[in-house]
Amino acid sequence: MNKTKSYSITRLQQGGLLAEEVEDQLVREWPLTIYLNGQEIVTLLTTPEYIEDLAIGFLAAEGFIKKADQIKTLYSDEEKGQVFIEADVSKIAESTFMKRFITTGCGKGTTFYHIDDARQSQKKVTSSLQVEAKKILELMQKMQKMSQLYQETGGVHSAALCDEQDILLYREDVGRHNAVDKILGKCFTDKEPLHDKLLLTSGRISSEILTKVAKMAIPIIVSRSAPTDLAIEYAEQIGVTVLGFARGQRMNLYTHPSRIISRKEGSQEN
Amino acid sequence: MNKTKSYSITRLQQGGLLAEEVEDQLVREWPLTIYLNGQEIVTLLTTPEYIEDLAIGFLAAEGFIKKADQIKTLYSDEEKGQVFIEADVSKIAESTFMKRFITTGCGKGTTFYHIDDARQSQKKVTSSLQVEAKKILELMQKMQKMSQLYQETGGVHSAALCDEQDILLYREDVGRHNAVDKILGKCFTDKEPLHDKLLLTSGRISSEILTKVAKMAIPIIVSRSAPTDLAIEYAEQIGVTVLGFARGQRMNLYTHPSRIISRKEGSQEN
Repeated sequence: MNKTKSYSITRLQQGGLLAEEVEDQLVREWPLTIYLNGQEIVTLLTTPEYIEDLAIGFLAAEGFIKKADQIKTLYSDEEKGQVFIEADVSKIAESTFMKRFITTGCGKGTTFYHIDDARQSQKKVTSSLQVEAKKILELMQKMQKMSQLYQETGGVHSAALCDEQDILLYREDVGRHNAVDKILGKCFTDKEPLHDKLLLTSGRISSEILTKVAKMAIPIIVSRSAPTDLAIEYAEQIGVTVLGFARGQRMNLYTHPSRIISRKEGSQEN
Repeated sequence: MNKTKSYSITRLQQGGLLAEEVEDQLVREWPLTIYLNGQEIVTLLTTPEYIEDLAIGFLAAEGFIKKADQIKTLYSDEEKGQVFIEADVSKIAESTFMKRFITTGCGKGTTFYHIDDARQSQKKVTSSLQVEAKKILELMQKMQKMSQLYQETGGVHSAALCDEQDILLYREDVGRHNAVDKILGKCFTDKEPLHDKLLLTSGRISSEILTKVAKMAIPIIVSRSAPTDLAIEYAEQIGVTVLGFARGQRMNLYTHPSRIISRKEGSQEN
């Protein structure tokens, strides 16, 4: 399915003095419904590609499935916007999540978890990964250049998984959470270790994104944009390094700074 | 409650060669749970101000309540993040929405409605409002200058309600949907007519935002950013004028152009 749709628009310039009809590319927003063991779990609005990764990433990051081996069958229909997953999940886990879903999980930009519940059950993210600040800024610039769909439509967010050297996996989506879930889903299926990786995102770091990153035990998250206080509070507690406003040669380091190699103020080379 | 929180961070410059400890302002992300007739409806993550407007705006834009007179009592606790509303709503309406909630409504950036259902029951937005393109660009610039919290934290979205002359109401929030809901809630309570107003937003125009705007019968929506194909398709059908990428002296006009006064290509003044 195409990720963009051509549309005739009027382009206004010079404050409206100049108006011309042109063909424009709109980013597609496609509803995708995820079914787990026959139960309808959620409908996400997404860029229609990598929908199986998205479904798996969503279920993994929200704690519905813990291990790739739990997944028995997977069937998807991109046109209809459906992914059906059969997995070995306990009835208890299902009902717990459905309860969260109904009571607190929903809404704009929110996920299934109640943040306090999520925190209590979350293991600390431990990792000996150390990365140079300079390298992170390079990776961020590289990610921005990869965003074909953004250049065409201006309507998507990017996410990238990296090691200390390079970008390993890149995704873009109309939803900033979806771009992250598509990466997480692919890694989950491939049993890719994440304790030695960084996640880059063009979007803001809210508590939900941080919860996903913590659930997948990624030690470093970097954004072009701002984090919220709730995300930072949680990152501090759970052991995730957060970098924000990574633009050009600058960025802000919010939590767990020991993983970032930089020169401290006043230090001198010998 | 404060909208920002001070936090000690490391500011890295010159690609990490310069690192200094500074105090930074983080935007607050505060969980707000909305209860309708004793039933927990949703938890939103929001900037903690105008929470009653947000609760009412959310319930109105999602179709839980239709008229301000339906609201009997309202009690809120900002610290605990709770708004309790008692309203005359039919049991049927409630159960319909709860079903939508469980089956399709949830997820990141999604709302309660199933989009096809919403479309079928939605009245056409009719309005004789006409606004000059030049004026819209001026209003957009004015909105951007109003964003104090954005200037402090870089982590919020803005929304503004305008008539043909000026900005009437301005809100900013960590969630782009919330900023819009805060405006809609205030107007709903005040029984402010919206058929002769414009809504400006800093965020992208996705199908959910368009559905809110349509529900409140606002004829024109303007964004600094991109619309999606689903939003445009819906706007075309429902009678909403959509403008995107409104920056400086330029913008794109996507749907129902007759409400926007501009000079067409090739036309000449006599």
